[in-house]
Amino acid sequence: MMASSTPSSIEHTMLAASEQLQVPSNITKFKIGLCQLSVTSEKNQNLACARNLIKAAVERGARLVVLPEMWTCPYSNDYFAKFAEDFENEDASPTFFMLSEAACSHGITIVAGSVPESCDGQLYNTSCVFGPDGKLKAKHRKIHLFDIEIPGDITFKESDFFAAGDKPTIVDTDVGRIGIGICHDIRFPELAALYRAKGARIICYPGAFNISTGELLWEVMQRARAADNQLFVATCSPSRDSSGSYAIWGHSTLVGPSGEIIATSGHEETVVVAEIDYSKIELQRKGLPLDKQKRADIYLS
Amino acid sequence: MMASSTPSSIEHTMLAASEQLQVPSNITKFKIGLCQLSVTSEKNQNLACARNLIKAAVERGARLVVLPEMWTCPYSNDYFAKFAEDFENEDASPTFFMLSEAACSHGITIVAGSVPESCDGQLYNTSCVFGPDGKLKAKHRKIHLFDIEIPGDITFKESDFFAAGDKPTIVDTDVGRIGIGICHDIRFPELAALYRAKGARIICYPGAFNISTGELLWEVMQRARAADNQLFVATCSPSRDSSGSYAIWGHSTLVGPSGEIIATSGHEETVVVAEIDYSKIELQRKGLPLDKQKRADIYLS
Repeated sequence: MMASSTPSSIEHTMLAASEQLQVPSNITKFKIGLCQLSVTSEKNQNLACARNLIKAAVERGARLVVLPEMWTCPYSNDYFAKFAEDFENEDASPTFFMLSEAACSHGITIVAGSVPESCDGQLYNTSCVFGPDGKLKAKHRKIHLFDIEIPGDITFKESDFFAAGDKPTIVDTDVGRIGIGICHDIRFPELAALYRAKGARIICYPGAFNISTGELLWEVMQRARAADNQLFVATCSPSRDSSGSYAIWGHSTLVGPSGEIIATSGHEETVVVAEIDYSKIELQRKGLPLDKQKRADIYLS
Repeated sequence: MMASSTPSSIEHTMLAASEQLQVPSNITKFKIGLCQLSVTSEKNQNLACARNLIKAAVERGARLVVLPEMWTCPYSNDYFAKFAEDFENEDASPTFFMLSEAACSHGITIVAGSVPESCDGQLYNTSCVFGPDGKLKAKHRKIHLFDIEIPGDITFKESDFFAAGDKPTIVDTDVGRIGIGICHDIRFPELAALYRAKGARIICYPGAFNISTGELLWEVMQRARAADNQLFVATCSPSRDSSGSYAIWGHSTLVGPSGEIIATSGHEETVVVAEIDYSKIELQRKGLPLDKQKRADIYLS
């Protein structure tokens, strides 16, 4: 069954401020699946591969499935516009169709990595979140585009291809409140702190770090965001054997609220399935109440 | 030669806000020495050991020397009050005397780890910074005391013994502008971000992480603070073979502005000497201008 949503209901769901964790009605422990898929230059093949890996994750018990950044499309300007879809026109979006069907038929939540979105003449790097009823619950447009120029190491200018999002995205799902960031968004501790303040218990960062920044910072960033905010961080990358010129780090990972790696992977196509236990958040925050230990009066000096 | 300072001149030097890096007048590259010393229950022995390791660091070219957290005194409540000194009464402080003499005779800057400070009936966990003229340039009292209670893992309540400092500390030295934090202060990204905003090029964190939190987070925290703020982070720990019941992680480390480990150590007594090259900061910030990429309008949502 396909679900429909009006644009206003799906635009960057931003919840009212809440400093308190909201315990989801019926879940404290569940499995997450991170689908580290191999992205090719054939969109239909990528959709089929993602569909298969979602199924594999569900068969291993996952109730929340995360896909990588740019999973329908090689990470190259040669493909972005051609592969882009307009999620306001969902009937013309095969990606929307597949994700809605998969979420609905399995009764799961999907944080659908990111894909190129075409809207009002702009391209965005956009993550869609689908609920178990097949409805699009939220849409996050990458806020911080990856513009870097380190001579002899790496040069990349994502803002040549994409427009930036301008809203944070947290969304209440059947497995709790989730904050969304895409790749370079993880480099900004302020965004993670905002999600924590708004009651997120997981931050999902679909990402496609390259080999250079991946080896240096992929693990450090996700563990720091988790430990600093005492919540779960889930990352999902494409596998390294993607088409295109961009060599991807891989290593999709689940990190727990004390900064510990719960499960991770290499760089090959794989599905990581691991347990999220929200009681770990309460235990960690009770034992080491970082939030109460903060000295906001001092940081504003 | 001993230098004298009035209390008002040494109290928590906090500089006027400056968003711009101030290039020190005459230095862009120099060596730092991290003295990972073995702390015993004999203060005089600790002073002599520190003095020897400072000399060893200088002989290997260090112009900035960092000592560990609690290097005059075992990390135990049995010793804090007995070993405490009053830095407002420097003539009665053998620690002040040794540090001032060492800084002056070698012509170096010393970030003197931390020691128990007694002042107005309170104990503080305090770091003193001495300049090459032997003068006390700044004093940082640990802001975030380490209170933790994780059943089956670790229980510690530093606030039972110490009062907390209430000011950030950055200080202009002959080797550039330095921010100071002590151990648990590193867990708070807001303090590091403040130091970066005020123009610090190095943050020194004397620390004494225990084995449990050390293995989990010592490296992650310092690399994240360095990478997020694109500056140098230097940590200095006592060695593990300290007296007392507190098993220390060690691993004194210098991290560069892209989050890379420049030099580190194991847990034995040692001196880490490594080069700080400020041009790396400019290179990193120019190539990946995180500060300009921030979206302050969004984080305040």
